[in-house]
Amino acid sequence: MVQSSTKLRTISGVTMRDLVLKLFFILFLLFTLSVSSEKKSFKPKQPCKDLVLYYHDTLFNGTDVANATSAAATDPTKLGNFKFGMLVVFDDPMTKDNHLLSRPVARAQGFYFYDKKSTYTAWFAFTLIFNSTKHKGTLNIMGADLMTEETRDFSVVGGTGDFFMARGIATIHTDTFQGDYYFRLKMDIKLYECY
Amino acid sequence: MVQSSTKLRTISGVTMRDLVLKLFFILFLLFTLSVSSEKKSFKPKQPCKDLVLYYHDTLFNGTDVANATSAAATDPTKLGNFKFGMLVVFDDPMTKDNHLLSRPVARAQGFYFYDKKSTYTAWFAFTLIFNSTKHKGTLNIMGADLMTEETRDFSVVGGTGDFFMARGIATIHTDTFQGDYYFRLKMDIKLYECY
Amino acid sequence: MVQSSTKLRTISGVTMRDLVLKLFFILFLLFTLSVSSEKKSFKPKQPCKDLVLYYHDTLFNGTDVANATSAAATDPTKLGNFKFGMLVVFDDPMTKDNHLLSRPVARAQGFYFYDKKSTYTAWFAFTLIFNSTKHKGTLNIMGADLMTEETRDFSVVGGTGDFFMARGIATIHTDTFQGDYYFRLKMDIKLYECY
Repeated sequence: MVQSSTKLRTISGVTMRDLVLKLFFILFLLFTLSVSSEKKSFKPKQPCKDLVLYYHDTLFNGTDVANATSAAATDPTKLGNFKFGMLVVFDDPMTKDNHLLSRPVARAQGFYFYDKKSTYTAWFAFTLIFNSTKHKGTLNIMGADLMTEETRDFSVVGGTGDFFMARGIATIHTDTFQGDYYFRLKMDIKLYECY
Repeated sequence: MVQSSTKLRTISGVTMRDLVLKLFFILFLLFTLSVSSEKKSFKPKQPCKDLVLYYHDTLFNGTDVANATSAAATDPTKLGNFKFGMLVVFDDPMTKDNHLLSRPVARAQGFYFYDKKSTYTAWFAFTLIFNSTKHKGTLNIMGADLMTEETRDFSVVGGTGDFFMARGIATIHTDTFQGDYYFRLKMDIKLYECY
Repeated sequence: MVQSSTKLRTISGVTMRDLVLKLFFILFLLFTLSVSSEKKSFKPKQPCKDLVLYYHDTLFNGTDVANATSAAATDPTKLGNFKFGMLVVFDDPMTKDNHLLSRPVARAQGFYFYDKKSTYTAWFAFTLIFNSTKHKGTLNIMGADLMTEETRDFSVVGGTGDFFMARGIATIHTDTFQGDYYFRLKMDIKLYECY
């Protein structure tokens, strides 16, 4: 009887254990599939990618074609004394350190315009274009540059290539400026959605 | 025998029940983790945040610096008679009710331009800047303003601060206009992705 | 005894099997709910919608109001010889084949500007407006047009109406151009996030 019941226990136990293990395996597969089919990384406020780059804007003064990388497409309006309405188009180098002449790792192509009558603020929309062995692709960015604040945030609203479908935040800090003709922004680009 | 088999049943049953309960617990944990690690609210077409605000645009006429909050940066082209190509930069107040002089709860900084030769339509891109005890942060918005339609939808393509990574729809309705020099839009901003 | 043990096995086995099946059913429900409550389609790099359209830009030359669908709002700057800073506003037809005079299935309203001193490149932001029996709604798009490359990618950053909350990639190819006054882009619009 002991033998018989052991055998019985074995049959019933093994069958159940098998069933449970199979079930566990199926559910694990389903779970894995559901996670992997998503492929977005959604750890809240934990970036899936972080890039720190410096943006250098050298405004065309009418003669320095060789050095300038941006130019005013419109004149300022007469609404206040802070260049309200002046729109600047740029093709600016992005570098890893804060030296203007360092080898660019990307270009920033886009525009900004001044938009406050009582102080300097601007609005930006641009594309970061990466074309190196390390990164190929683009990031599309827009937002308000409230220059009087220590840092301000732009939205990374899309990406292509290596940055396929990316979203995130680009935190901007004015590293230096020399009048209107040169300014440098530190951009800390954190992506929170990566495919 | 009855006793023995009961004992047997107990051994085999309890073991299995334990195994099953443990399995259930592990799977429940995995499931909970997978859901909570996501943190986005995705109830389809159920906004996670809804804000109704009024946008007031007072166009600079060349002299009223004190009142104006927007100014034309370019002249209209000669393509049709509906100001095609006129680009207006704005730093407009956003209020909770439709009174121009109510205390602004946000600023809208950005631009619009007219873009049809046969009627008035415009294209907008701007940032809503919140800086109050209630909300700190920005929402970045863009879209076509088909003025002949009762309502039209802009895309909220990103957010920062309290609106970290937000996305949604801003539904626009022309509340009133006085020629070109003042117009008011009701904006019903529904966010469908909130972190 | 055999009978008894069989009965025992049945009792213990059926109970377990029941428990396991119920557990499986509950977990399956949870899994289904978690997937269906999301409603976004996230198959990586598998578009949930694909549209191929042709964009026709006919630039106003100062007299052809009837044919032109775009106009320069600013003059080029003197930074290089590639129209750096020239901003063009457009309300261009989108067709299914590459014939300019085919019935438009959408309008593209927005702008581009030239932004490189050493060659032609441009930056675009625009809305595709669909208003047919097939599609009602808009897609908002932005990105860099590196014309020297065979294809380049814009970001679809938002959508409304039938394209509610959509995101994706619009791949651009220059189909033809006749000087500055007419060019045609093939746009392959793949949406990867659909609600």
